[in-house]
Amino acid sequence: MNGNVLVVHGGGPTAVINSSLYGVIKEARESKKVDKVYAALGGSEGILKENFMDLMEIPEERIKLLLETPATAIGSSRYALEKEDYEAMPAIFEKYHIRYVLLNGGNGTMDTCGKIHEACKKSGVTVVGIPKTIDNDIAITDHTPGFGSAARYIAATTAEVGMDVKSLPIHVCVIEAMGRNAGWVTAASALARKKPGDAPHLIYLPERPFKEEEFLADVKKLHEEKGGVVVVASEGLKGEDGKPVVPPIYKTGRATYYGDVSAYLANLVIQKLDIKARSEKPGICGRSSIAWQSPVDREEAVLAGREALKAAMEGQGGVMIGFIREDRVDGEYCIHAERIPIEKVMLHERAIPESFINERGNDVTNEFVKWCRPLIGPELRDFIDFQENI
Amino acid sequence: MNGNVLVVHGGGPTAVINSSLYGVIKEARESKKVDKVYAALGGSEGILKENFMDLMEIPEERIKLLLETPATAIGSSRYALEKEDYEAMPAIFEKYHIRYVLLNGGNGTMDTCGKIHEACKKSGVTVVGIPKTIDNDIAITDHTPGFGSAARYIAATTAEVGMDVKSLPIHVCVIEAMGRNAGWVTAASALARKKPGDAPHLIYLPERPFKEEEFLADVKKLHEEKGGVVVVASEGLKGEDGKPVVPPIYKTGRATYYGDVSAYLANLVIQKLDIKARSEKPGICGRSSIAWQSPVDREEAVLAGREALKAAMEGQGGVMIGFIREDRVDGEYCIHAERIPIEKVMLHERAIPESFINERGNDVTNEFVKWCRPLIGPELRDFIDFQENI
Repeated sequence: MNGNVLVVHGGGPTAVINSSLYGVIKEARESKKVDKVYAALGGSEGILKENFMDLMEIPEERIKLLLETPATAIGSSRYALEKEDYEAMPAIFEKYHIRYVLLNGGNGTMDTCGKIHEACKKSGVTVVGIPKTIDNDIAITDHTPGFGSAARYIAATTAEVGMDVKSLPIHVCVIEAMGRNAGWVTAASALARKKPGDAPHLIYLPERPFKEEEFLADVKKLHEEKGGVVVVASEGLKGEDGKPVVPPIYKTGRATYYGDVSAYLANLVIQKLDIKARSEKPGICGRSSIAWQSPVDREEAVLAGREALKAAMEGQGGVMIGFIREDRVDGEYCIHAERIPIEKVMLHERAIPESFINERGNDVTNEFVKWCRPLIGPELRDFIDFQENI
Repeated sequence: MNGNVLVVHGGGPTAVINSSLYGVIKEARESKKVDKVYAALGGSEGILKENFMDLMEIPEERIKLLLETPATAIGSSRYALEKEDYEAMPAIFEKYHIRYVLLNGGNGTMDTCGKIHEACKKSGVTVVGIPKTIDNDIAITDHTPGFGSAARYIAATTAEVGMDVKSLPIHVCVIEAMGRNAGWVTAASALARKKPGDAPHLIYLPERPFKEEEFLADVKKLHEEKGGVVVVASEGLKGEDGKPVVPPIYKTGRATYYGDVSAYLANLVIQKLDIKARSEKPGICGRSSIAWQSPVDREEAVLAGREALKAAMEGQGGVMIGFIREDRVDGEYCIHAERIPIEKVMLHERAIPESFINERGNDVTNEFVKWCRPLIGPELRDFIDFQENI
């Protein structure tokens, strides 16, 4: 007996979340066991509103655009589901003959996924998670779809900004990278380097307490040597007291707003060192860039979508698709997909391990670079620099 | 009698300043009238330090990398030349058999160009300007090399961020664009739109006084309609009193530092409207992006380099190469290069004309879009959006 699939997107987009959706549709078409691939438009709220759209009949040439469309083509939300919402779901799924529910998202969405799985246990609906986050902070899996592209973006952008700063070496430039609690994207800026001395010159991760005095000493020394200095810092940088380095600028009933870390550090350099400084904060430009989408990341996102539907069709609910990196003798990069029990990943946050951060806490280690390198795809462009040796 | 060429870069880089250098080298090789193409490493200071490097013998496959290398491969500076610096130049040029001096830069560099021309009049050295600035604020010429690529970057990035904000419509997003006194790059964000309602929803240029009340009213209305709103604002936004809207945050002996316009506007939205808001400031990422280099811009930059050397070899100094847009019956975009007397462009700043800005001062006109469209090159990518009609 055939059934329908429902795909739901949760949380912030990545450059390849739509690629996973593409993978689900491809797998559904090839399986012959699926009649409709419903998208819940607007995220989890779309389930409750029964805001469903069938993507099964959309021609392949249109569906293919998913591979090069940033953000999420079916919408997303940060709506927090309540107990009664979960309870309402089995009836909704039954009404639409939905047998397979696939939730694509980060830690929060995996939590939702586990809860929907629990709520649907009796009804025979299988619920599977597809990981997605540029932050790369989901447990167990080697890495998450979305991270490789955000990593490629920050590496390429840091290389370009590095050339700019080197060619007109009049300032310290602080680039802010996304990832409030996990520094994976910030760390990936190290992949901009092709030779010693290349930008970034300093990297600050939220995993280590930020020490203002050391930062200023390092910047001063580098500025004397090079003129132009490139710093990459996480948006979530914290001090030794565990509090954000940037003081809160405004509180509303809902949230506390902080200033930008990049502007804060640039101002420190100006005021404490009297050195010209500026800040760049590409922000969500970096998670929605198709030009810097990593082909490896895109392929793996497609794979995650396909594998999620396969697991669901085999009746294996309550799992998330993860990637296991194979330890090959030839050193070649190779992963395979595995089904990870959802309770093992629900709301766990994975920070960067100590072995990936240098002792002084102002750079990453070669071990990190080696780990990260295959995820960003092809080598970055070679530049020509006639000032190379001066 | 053959002579040598000297190329000097001034001011901030663009994505195609190296393409003009490529054009000079190509023209020099084809002309057979040039022995060496010297680069003054590090900008105008490089002349005084005689920090010259001959690029004539570098193999074509290496030189070709100039077309895809951001920033300037020979360095640049903001060094302000003094009277005695100009007086020292004729002897330096003679020493290196330099007969043609080409200065590539913006308004400030064109001023320098005119002054070197004056200083070298008696010595038979011809001095020619190659325009370059993402700001597009040089007089007479239809547009400047560097602008088309910065325009393509901001249009593409705004389209991508627009998809992100639409797919998770929880905030107002303010993107800051470069161009302190001229809003050309900010205006080009309008080219992100493919259909009505697409981002950007509001555009604020430095040519018009910023009215806080109108901004807040417009944002509020759009937020009620759409949930997610994208605003693009110039880094140099000024109030009705002609002063920067962002209060100065710090003064040193050398300069006054202002906060970021994007963060300032986002904070206004949070504090006055209690709507979630964030800011993105790609900054120099936008002038150094090779992924978003406009092929039209690159070709025109090569042309400007070639034409500058041609003018110099014909003994026509004291000019800048400019582009004249032809008024063709078939409406096709077509330009030709012209030699513009340098005194006509020295230190003039060209702002956006009134006819390119809408009445309320929160958008550009169709006339601007029509003017700008050919400069950014091929159509931007089509995205698929299943939420299109909701």
